[in-house]
Amino acid sequence: MGKDDVVNLALRRSLFFPSAEIYSSAPSGFWDFGPFGHRIRRKIVDFWRKEFVEKEGFLEISGAQILPRDVFKASGHLDNFNDPVVRCRKCQSVFRADQLISEATSAVVPESISTPEFDALIKKHKLRCPSCKAIDFDETKKFNMMMKLDIGATGKQEAYLRPETCQSIFLAFDRLYKTMRQQLPLGIAQSGASFRNEISPRNTLLRERELGQMEIEVFFNPLKENEVEKWESVKDYKLRLLRLKEKNVKEYSCMESVDKKIVSSRLVAYLLCRTQQFYAKLGVPLPLMRFRELEQEARAFYAKETWDFEVETSLGWVELAACNHRSDYDLKSHSAVSKHDHQIKDLETGKEFFPNVFEISAGLDRSLFVLLDVSLKKEKRGPEERIFLSLNPSIAPYVAGVFPLVNKDGLNEKAREVFGLLKDEDFDVFFDDKGSIGKRYARGDEIGVFGGITVDYDSMKDGTVTFRFRDSMAQERVKIADLPVFLKKAVKDYFSTPMRK
Amino acid sequence: MGKDDVVNLALRRSLFFPSAEIYSSAPSGFWDFGPFGHRIRRKIVDFWRKEFVEKEGFLEISGAQILPRDVFKASGHLDNFNDPVVRCRKCQSVFRADQLISEATSAVVPESISTPEFDALIKKHKLRCPSCKAIDFDETKKFNMMMKLDIGATGKQEAYLRPETCQSIFLAFDRLYKTMRQQLPLGIAQSGASFRNEISPRNTLLRERELGQMEIEVFFNPLKENEVEKWESVKDYKLRLLRLKEKNVKEYSCMESVDKKIVSSRLVAYLLCRTQQFYAKLGVPLPLMRFRELEQEARAFYAKETWDFEVETSLGWVELAACNHRSDYDLKSHSAVSKHDHQIKDLETGKEFFPNVFEISAGLDRSLFVLLDVSLKKEKRGPEERIFLSLNPSIAPYVAGVFPLVNKDGLNEKAREVFGLLKDEDFDVFFDDKGSIGKRYARGDEIGVFGGITVDYDSMKDGTVTFRFRDSMAQERVKIADLPVFLKKAVKDYFSTPMRK
Repeated sequence: MGKDDVVNLALRRSLFFPSAEIYSSAPSGFWDFGPFGHRIRRKIVDFWRKEFVEKEGFLEISGAQILPRDVFKASGHLDNFNDPVVRCRKCQSVFRADQLISEATSAVVPESISTPEFDALIKKHKLRCPSCKAIDFDETKKFNMMMKLDIGATGKQEAYLRPETCQSIFLAFDRLYKTMRQQLPLGIAQSGASFRNEISPRNTLLRERELGQMEIEVFFNPLKENEVEKWESVKDYKLRLLRLKEKNVKEYSCMESVDKKIVSSRLVAYLLCRTQQFYAKLGVPLPLMRFRELEQEARAFYAKETWDFEVETSLGWVELAACNHRSDYDLKSHSAVSKHDHQIKDLETGKEFFPNVFEISAGLDRSLFVLLDVSLKKEKRGPEERIFLSLNPSIAPYVAGVFPLVNKDGLNEKAREVFGLLKDEDFDVFFDDKGSIGKRYARGDEIGVFGGITVDYDSMKDGTVTFRFRDSMAQERVKIADLPVFLKKAVKDYFSTPMRK
Repeated sequence: MGKDDVVNLALRRSLFFPSAEIYSSAPSGFWDFGPFGHRIRRKIVDFWRKEFVEKEGFLEISGAQILPRDVFKASGHLDNFNDPVVRCRKCQSVFRADQLISEATSAVVPESISTPEFDALIKKHKLRCPSCKAIDFDETKKFNMMMKLDIGATGKQEAYLRPETCQSIFLAFDRLYKTMRQQLPLGIAQSGASFRNEISPRNTLLRERELGQMEIEVFFNPLKENEVEKWESVKDYKLRLLRLKEKNVKEYSCMESVDKKIVSSRLVAYLLCRTQQFYAKLGVPLPLMRFRELEQEARAFYAKETWDFEVETSLGWVELAACNHRSDYDLKSHSAVSKHDHQIKDLETGKEFFPNVFEISAGLDRSLFVLLDVSLKKEKRGPEERIFLSLNPSIAPYVAGVFPLVNKDGLNEKAREVFGLLKDEDFDVFFDDKGSIGKRYARGDEIGVFGGITVDYDSMKDGTVTFRFRDSMAQERVKIADLPVFLKKAVKDYFSTPMRK
């Protein structure tokens, strides 16, 4: 299945759609999530919270999305969060210089090379404006991607929409460390929107101007970067790494990756392992994943080591999470500008130090898109073709639909009873009595509903229903009273049973 | 307990705290939610989704927070979403005119009177500048409260942060009505942040510049405003109404309120009933609630009927939700400006019409603040005083803490077993083995943890633990294996048992 299949499905069933699409003046790069898409997206966050954040004992906060200028002066974003842009002198169209060159020459151009280097490349390849075909580009300039706001009646309080959620975590580190009675290593997480004034948003959820993030910042004592409490549980786990200057992904156990100095510490290996495990559990097949090592000029300005977690999709490799060693960059910079000291005392040596940070910055909307992409299946069944979304039931919009086979002879009432029973037990189910049973199954399959529960004439006699699995289309008779236990088990078993293709 | 008690607790335990507080340049009106506060806040949204949105069969979406200028031209916000501001000519301080007058004269001044009327009142009362004491005010002006952004590299795409979440619901109505196979009445909900450039933010979460909302828009055929499917289930329910020009709250059944033309239709009565029930279930005592009818000049510019749902707190009456009859204002305006027709066809008459809208626009952060305010209790117990937060266990940060009585003789390991058992069953529990058992109870009580589970020497012999209730401090021995059922029941029974004060 290709990229267009995902987008077609998304638009047809309103999983996501362009924001304010009824207005031709709506800027691109903004997306709304409809009822089913919002459910899947929300459950990805719930899964991240439960399977990653809480299992590791990390804290989660929710900070304001608007922050004052000084925050971004200290963080370096005002000076460094730039894209190289170039304007056509003839038609005034504006392009990202790196994209312009890459698209015309098929070469990968890092966005961090200098503006004269871009100009040289544009000249060398005699690039034409994609809009008006003129060869008449202005000099490349740095364009800051943050979105600026003026706060207050006098408009003198300059502020910005955050370009990453993690800044509020750094700002609150000292408060949380003290009031939450914490010790290092300490993980603090946040999920929410960030904002980047992209020059050319594209590929729907893959390059947005308003983007959902799930970020984890792990603070640690740099002298203890190799003291990892749960090291035994991960040391033999195989990380899928694409190292600098290597062409292929190779598997290295966490232990190997540390011993061979492929990653800088046990803590880094441990957190890469948890990231890989998280996405595997979420439903991305292992062979489609890799961590790609970034060379210095391709890394974010605050990172001293970066592994991009990527997944192979119908659009090629897509980055889902940046795993950055941010060293003491953030706490040190904010301490210097705010004058609030973020150092803490090492209880053994009595010395003050800035905790270092390793971050796993995951894209929520990208994760959603990629999960749709790797889950969407087309299947020939005799003369017919069916489409289904093979989602992990934990993030399916509903775990099951409840259907009366026909709307007479009390079947509808019985089905509503079954629906009520499951709702009371907090199962995410829906009721549908419209159209043929085949159509109801198909509508559910397409958006990833895990199972169909059909109430038929036998149900009235023996109190059983048919449970039909989305992926295998296998059917099983289950006693109504046993449904809660059956469903719970089926969801838990999903990754170990043949019903998953 | 007073307002200061809530704020002190919030800051002490980091439930919420000023955003970017380490920077003196941080503008006011922005708040961050720490780990416990974020948990409570998130659970309020979950409770709203489960007990209101999903029980009514409404849809929920999540739209972009930035919308283009045309949206707010059509919605009327560019022209009408203004606050009256007045500037001191001497010291240049800016104030909201209505607040300036109210605070100096103790009279209630509607914010919607004309600017010459404000000027006349300021002159009449010879008001002084609260900052520099001069009597030298400029003329009152209208100040638009929306926050403006420039999108794109050329900065020519004017956009705004949404001042209410509901606009994306109106924009997507036609798409959702069609692709989600819906009929009227159709409820569409959204929870998320909205942004208002308040002149003088104050009272922490009660007047913010970035505010959490939970909004429900119910679309209906205006000819069928009295056809309510579940009318029988609400007709005798008593609404607590404060009518225009009346001094006291009176109770009217839904039926009475319609028959006596106090509210405009059965649909309005039904939705007010569901709102009151939602907050009652959430934990606000009935005697502290009222719906206050607003006269025309106090209503939002789009509303033809408004009932403000208010709760009596340590700060007086606080509005938690505005219940607005928005008529066909929104769909008609957006159709006119966007040229996308939002009319639908009445299947009986064949005529096209604009659905009307009744909205329940609830403030999330206000709801959180008020729930803390009404739940915070101080209690004398012999020589000691204790503080506890008597929250509905469904929105408590944790349902229970698990504590080993002492950290020896295998009690810690046993307690971790109990903790694991409850986590496996998806209970929101935490583990704490630090400090005396009394201190652990007290720390949990203060942030609203519903119960304490203590593993002691008897646990090792007979497999039971002590469950201690937060509110009554009553203790009960429970078999470890029975804990899941016991906990589930205790949470469900909360509102019908004496353990709730």
